Amino acid sequence: MAALTGSLQNAPPTGRPRVVIVGGGFAGLNAAKGLAHLPVDVTLVDRSNHYTFQPLLYQVALAVLSPADIAQPIRTILRHQPNAQVLMDQVTGINVAARQVSLASGARLDYDYLVLATGATHSYFGNDQWEPLAPGLKTIEDAVEIRRRVLLAFELAERQMVEQGWHPPLNFVVIGGGPTGVELAGAISDIAQLYMRHDFRHIDPATSRVLLLDGGPRILAAYPPDLSANAEATLKRLGVEVHTGAQVTAVGPGWVQAHTQSGDLRIEAAVTLWAAGVLASPLGKLLGVPLDRRGCVIVDGQLNPPGQPEIFVLGDLAHFEQDGHQVPGVAQPAMQMGDHVAKMLAADLRGKPRPAFRYFDKGDMATIGRMAAVADVKWPFKAHMKGFPAWFTWLTVHIFFLIGFRNRLSVLASWMWTYFTFTRGARLITGDQTLPGWKEQTEVGRQAASEETGSKAIK
Amino acid sequence: MAALTGSLQNAPPTGRPRVVIVGGGFAGLNAAKGLAHLPVDVTLVDRSNHYTFQPLLYQVALAVLSPADIAQPIRTILRHQPNAQVLMDQVTGINVAARQVSLASGARLDYDYLVLATGATHSYFGNDQWEPLAPGLKTIEDAVEIRRRVLLAFELAERQMVEQGWHPPLNFVVIGGGPTGVELAGAISDIAQLYMRHDFRHIDPATSRVLLLDGGPRILAAYPPDLSANAEATLKRLGVEVHTGAQVTAVGPGWVQAHTQSGDLRIEAAVTLWAAGVLASPLGKLLGVPLDRRGCVIVDGQLNPPGQPEIFVLGDLAHFEQDGHQVPGVAQPAMQMGDHVAKMLAADLRGKPRPAFRYFDKGDMATIGRMAAVADVKWPFKAHMKGFPAWFTWLTVHIFFLIGFRNRLSVLASWMWTYFTFTRGARLITGDQTLPGWKEQTEVGRQAASEETGSKAIK
Repeated sequence: MAALTGSLQNAPPTGRPRVVIVGGGFAGLNAAKGLAHLPVDVTLVDRSNHYTFQPLLYQVALAVLSPADIAQPIRTILRHQPNAQVLMDQVTGINVAARQVSLASGARLDYDYLVLATGATHSYFGNDQWEPLAPGLKTIEDAVEIRRRVLLAFELAERQMVEQGWHPPLNFVVIGGGPTGVELAGAISDIAQLYMRHDFRHIDPATSRVLLLDGGPRILAAYPPDLSANAEATLKRLGVEVHTGAQVTAVGPGWVQAHTQSGDLRIEAAVTLWAAGVLASPLGKLLGVPLDRRGCVIVDGQLNPPGQPEIFVLGDLAHFEQDGHQVPGVAQPAMQMGDHVAKMLAADLRGKPRPAFRYFDKGDMATIGRMAAVADVKWPFKAHMKGFPAWFTWLTVHIFFLIGFRNRLSVLASWMWTYFTFTRGARLITGDQTLPGWKEQTEVGRQAASEETGSKAIK
Repeated sequence: MAALTGSLQNAPPTGRPRVVIVGGGFAGLNAAKGLAHLPVDVTLVDRSNHYTFQPLLYQVALAVLSPADIAQPIRTILRHQPNAQVLMDQVTGINVAARQVSLASGARLDYDYLVLATGATHSYFGNDQWEPLAPGLKTIEDAVEIRRRVLLAFELAERQMVEQGWHPPLNFVVIGGGPTGVELAGAISDIAQLYMRHDFRHIDPATSRVLLLDGGPRILAAYPPDLSANAEATLKRLGVEVHTGAQVTAVGPGWVQAHTQSGDLRIEAAVTLWAAGVLASPLGKLLGVPLDRRGCVIVDGQLNPPGQPEIFVLGDLAHFEQDGHQVPGVAQPAMQMGDHVAKMLAADLRGKPRPAFRYFDKGDMATIGRMAAVADVKWPFKAHMKGFPAWFTWLTVHIFFLIGFRNRLSVLASWMWTYFTFTRGARLITGDQTLPGWKEQTEVGRQAASEETGSKAIK
């Protein structure tokens, strides 16, 4: 590819330090915004044009919200920040010695400071062939794909009832009992029981099963045990079957196999979703520095990899230890790390030593379907909240953090409408109208049905 | 394929006539709703799960509205109608003698009455290879694809400015000067001039060109000449270059060629959109009855093809003549035809003769960008409206016709926000991040840029 070295446009002759930020998530965007009033030139590079409010992605996946409710173009967010420019491109290489990143388009960008905040992706633990069968939830595209599969499963079951009087089990299998898995399982159960009940004539959506599989001894393993137990009880009340100690050994079209204490379990699955493994973005590898087993860059108290004070690694891509524990890959530390970059660069510009980063943990929360949640609150008071109060706190915090005033109002309106009327217009199936495994199931189903009725299936 | 003849489920033994409606657009949905209080069993078959309010599709394409603002699941619309069921499937064959339709899933549906309302699709006049290069606008998927291309063109131009100080012409070429073409051209010009001005640092979106090509002597050929002239003048004021008498002879990746009176025109095009030809849905062919040259089924005064009183063909798929003119393929006649089906079946059930269909034309309107439109009003008074009054009428009528109260409010809120703040959150680029022809343009551009600056491009 061509590279126009010597004619780069990202360094107008201002003489100011050039900060290149890679990744427009919580960490990268907070870093960019924090630098607004420092005499630096910021270039934010992201391969997508939008920032995504990831904690609400599952609501897009389950057709409560529209993509535009929780995502916004990065350049719109930074439009009033004159020292920042946005570049939709992908970083393919980092030349640490020359302080230069190469881009997929073939060009290169010089930097004085490099901020890497490209986050994490799904890990299938070496079984990448499972990915098309069991999509994970990290991007708007993922959310739309999951929505497509869930809604399509209901449509196909209805069609099979009308056309052949029989449909394969309408099972939804969620693999992984962390916050995302719990939120997905709770929300699918809500959709099946509340919203879909009115729309289908032949299937009874209440007969669909939602299964949550986790390899460990309890779901929400990062939460205190009493909240784990409460979450499991709430899910069970919603009709979700929680299987802990279930190690998934195989994923196929229309089925999942898991190893449990009581033997091997084979579950027919109309839709399988993946919320189990997390792997750091591959960008960390380009630095040539020590990584942990998930590919996260091990950083020091100033968020630098060893010996590279001009490079900062933030958010899910960073392995940062505090008080002997690794800080988790969630929104709060990512945002705080982003904020901290500006403090460190301000110190540099004044010739002062950089302050050390310290993660201030306000707590964690996870919703469990409609109007229930668990919250491990650590600030401004300590509490283990459950049920409706936890959910109300979750609602308040999330509306507050959504970027953009209009979005906040619009999301609130959508929620109120959904919660009080059980109806919603975002249940659109777009794109491909087939489901992996459904063809096989359909043929099996047809044979089974014809054997029952005594009529013959002609292939 | 298997076919479970003899075990069909769409005919519960009610003894009531079975009405199969194919297509859930204006015509099909109005037919279904009209039959709500008649003693018939309705099955509506559509290959998509949602009804789309087509007149506002261009606003989804240009990122003003979200898909969920203008589309709704068909089964949600019909959820309170006990005599109607919805089937997401595709009709692949019609056995007129046996009164049976075959479905893509392999099953068959018996009918006593068949209503065909599958509408129309794009025609590339035998040049189907142009389709990926110049998408048309008929579905939500089309709209999202057009949005992706238009927004991506701005992103790529910005990137090229940053990376190489040069970008190929940011031309948007709309082929076809009917209402859709005029609306797309006006809306792109709006986006470029108003909304994008604030978001980009390097390209000047105002330097982008919007070209509207039409083969005929004037745009909006179906409207009175004074409104055509007004629309052309309004478009020109918005900066749109209108080329009438321009026959497109070739479409390539990144360019369009047209034959005009003053010779051949070759236009570089970052994005090319197709709003020229319309072809009836292929379903008409399955009937084995006379079609017109666009594939529409020629129907009589009762909307039947010759000799088939149990089959009704509605909307864009029907060729219906009134007072020596063919009724146009737009929303109003489709809705009225849908309504008329119920009147005819009610007559059948009472043993009376069917009333003849008569199209009552209230007029036509087309918007031209923000706050301007032309309207050929025929009812309740006759008038040629232009500019803001026409646009305000358009707004009122469209909000009124949008199905679903929440959607109406939400759309109104989106519009007000967009029109008064010039900002909007729906500008998301999802899916593939490449543009046809851009690679070629990029390489040409890079060479041109390096020749200008004297630096060398290394391949």
